Amino acid sequence: MTDPPLVVPRLIERKRDGLALAPEEWTAIVRGYVAGTIPDYQISALAMAVVFRGLTEPELVALTGAMLESGDRFRLEDMAWPRVDKHSIGGVGDKTSLLLAPMLACLEVAVPMISGRGLGHTGGTLDKLEAIPGFSTQLSLAEARRVLDRLGCVMMGQTPELVPADRKLYALRDVTGTVESIPLISASIMSKKLAESLTGLVLDIKTGSGAFITDPVQSLVLAETMIRLGEARGCRTTALLTAMDRPLGVACGNAVEVAEVIEGLRGGGPADLMEVTYALAAEMLLVSGRATARADARARVEAVIESGQALDRFRQLVEVQGGDPRVVDDPGRLPRAPVWLDVVADRNATVTAVAPRPIGHAIVALGGGRTKTDDRVDPAVGILVFVRPGQAVTRGERLATIAARSRDAAERARASVLAAMSFDGPLAPLPLISHRVTRDGVVPW
Amino acid sequence: MTDPPLVVPRLIERKRDGLALAPEEWTAIVRGYVAGTIPDYQISALAMAVVFRGLTEPELVALTGAMLESGDRFRLEDMAWPRVDKHSIGGVGDKTSLLLAPMLACLEVAVPMISGRGLGHTGGTLDKLEAIPGFSTQLSLAEARRVLDRLGCVMMGQTPELVPADRKLYALRDVTGTVESIPLISASIMSKKLAESLTGLVLDIKTGSGAFITDPVQSLVLAETMIRLGEARGCRTTALLTAMDRPLGVACGNAVEVAEVIEGLRGGGPADLMEVTYALAAEMLLVSGRATARADARARVEAVIESGQALDRFRQLVEVQGGDPRVVDDPGRLPRAPVWLDVVADRNATVTAVAPRPIGHAIVALGGGRTKTDDRVDPAVGILVFVRPGQAVTRGERLATIAARSRDAAERARASVLAAMSFDGPLAPLPLISHRVTRDGVVPW
Repeated sequence: MTDPPLVVPRLIERKRDGLALAPEEWTAIVRGYVAGTIPDYQISALAMAVVFRGLTEPELVALTGAMLESGDRFRLEDMAWPRVDKHSIGGVGDKTSLLLAPMLACLEVAVPMISGRGLGHTGGTLDKLEAIPGFSTQLSLAEARRVLDRLGCVMMGQTPELVPADRKLYALRDVTGTVESIPLISASIMSKKLAESLTGLVLDIKTGSGAFITDPVQSLVLAETMIRLGEARGCRTTALLTAMDRPLGVACGNAVEVAEVIEGLRGGGPADLMEVTYALAAEMLLVSGRATARADARARVEAVIESGQALDRFRQLVEVQGGDPRVVDDPGRLPRAPVWLDVVADRNATVTAVAPRPIGHAIVALGGGRTKTDDRVDPAVGILVFVRPGQAVTRGERLATIAARSRDAAERARASVLAAMSFDGPLAPLPLISHRVTRDGVVPW
Repeated sequence: MTDPPLVVPRLIERKRDGLALAPEEWTAIVRGYVAGTIPDYQISALAMAVVFRGLTEPELVALTGAMLESGDRFRLEDMAWPRVDKHSIGGVGDKTSLLLAPMLACLEVAVPMISGRGLGHTGGTLDKLEAIPGFSTQLSLAEARRVLDRLGCVMMGQTPELVPADRKLYALRDVTGTVESIPLISASIMSKKLAESLTGLVLDIKTGSGAFITDPVQSLVLAETMIRLGEARGCRTTALLTAMDRPLGVACGNAVEVAEVIEGLRGGGPADLMEVTYALAAEMLLVSGRATARADARARVEAVIESGQALDRFRQLVEVQGGDPRVVDDPGRLPRAPVWLDVVADRNATVTAVAPRPIGHAIVALGGGRTKTDDRVDPAVGILVFVRPGQAVTRGERLATIAARSRDAAERARASVLAAMSFDGPLAPLPLISHRVTRDGVVPW
């Protein structure tokens, strides 16, 4: 079967003028782009028209489907267990993936987790995992399948055969000002998640000043759009809206976050981190079909922490993926920065805000993040943020600790951390978890 | 001097979000694009953002200036005569350029006319001139200067050294759905016209269904935008809004239009063609400074037709540019199609519309126009349209004559011509000339 000849400029003009393209036109566009018969300059103009005009639901379904079918899938339909993943829009201190994968695996839910790297102010799961000496995230699909069969979870990076259209399109959007589009973001995320052959997916939609999307209405539209795309392909999809108006947990960075994950798997993580982790884990258990009542799901996900099962599973995962399993019992073996600097309160006050973006940018400045996709990250640096909006502090009390390569770098980070914090101002923190979104609508948490 | 480093994606995002770029940013964008350091795919996305967001006046001035300065100019500042050109937005049967250049040259106004080719339903001056056997429009700037010094006018195509940014940008816009943008159209036209070192410019802004822009408000915005750009560079610029809800004159095609031009230079052209020609010619004489009163200007431009001076100058121009000057006295020497077919009225009726677009497309179908820029045109084919909106016709009266390569082609064109005409319907032709626009505003004609 050959595609009909496309007159791409006419398609661009129609989208520009607010008309919808036919599903088969989107299919042909994606095929032509991946095959190289449609050049970058036409796709970037089309993407910009989509930024302004959006996509209709049939267009979005067609685009997502065409992207999904541009490559192979991680084929898991023969597995006996349900297959569930969690996707977060990204944030500062957002380390729940590392807890969730072993937790759900202990509950006979397979987690084929394919993650990304940090960029800008947000961290990335792959960077965190690679802070563990020896840990390899670059697995082939065959290797990943062996890990998944053995442990019930795997944590890895994208592979070349999965969704090549997204890789090519995302690289183009990144340099043409066409990233910020709900339909393009949705198609990008969902084509990659659906390529994992999931039966269920939980979205962690971050809201607030540190989120990728700061407008709460837009966040909800994004959640609902991705839920429709998942459900249309038979993947039970739900979302929680969670706060990213302050960092999640205490540790922000790579090795320091792994240490906090281990603390959490031991049952001792920061309260906010554990609350979001338990909520997401229960949600994953619900969409897996292994539980039907929230209270039951919640009790079971807490139990795998209390029993130490999740910690054991994480230790096994580290070992199977080439990492040093001893870090799980001795986090002192993680890379450690040479300079540690406390940031203390200079007066008695109430903390009213801890803005995640400047904290994230300070970590990038310390060397722990990326401004370009090919930057290298320093796993050892980071910032521990001990205070939360609403918390009273006394003069001399520790607000944060900076782990840096040099005294100078630490001093610069101290200024950024203080600038990120507000004291005695208006206090309006977001609820830690505000809403749950399903195909049936949105309900307050 | 080196340009500051540009972060092009950030510039695209700012324009996308409705913010203005700085003039020096536009300069750097144009330089980078011509130098090849900014790729097509970023420029096409930026152009699409401009389609949606427009440009502020300082942005437009900067973009036009940067395009103008991307290459050399046709340097004419040392000429004693004022230098004036006419630019038309394009239409069907629009042949006034061929009359105007020799007419103004007879009145000591230099006309360094650089024109384009036809595309889509509209014809192009270069195609018409090349219907004259031997006529060369591909002159170097040095050759063009010699013709201009000798005759006071020259009619030619773009040269490689003039406004290379426009050539590259226009080719990209043509295939990325980004042609339809008033600021981008204005910058494209005005950078090319200002490269002719003009002291004055008259714009013929076509209105109505056959115009490139059919919305009258948009036409006026285009006129005012180009006038501001011209005046900002010291080029007196005015515009006439003229009707393109029917073809101009009788002849539509290439050789047939040249024959009508010769008829016009002999004082015998169709009334509507001569009226628009005289109005534009008088306007050119006014912006040249050679006349200050319209009545005086009008009398003088009519006089160069009546005296035969303009015809003589046209004959000289044809000869100097390599064409066969005998066609001027014997238009039978022009290329002539083998099949001529009359289209006649099948009943007594009143013609209420003659839509230019289907007439133009019928000429393209006959081989006399282009759908792609590299199509070849057949100079001999064309359509003579004898009727005008409001004209009563009797059964059997000739409405049009088709000049074609074959009987089949002529029959197909006949169907298109009849489809282009309305009879006994609502009658609302546009005034032939509706408004005059200057830097001081718009006044009814």
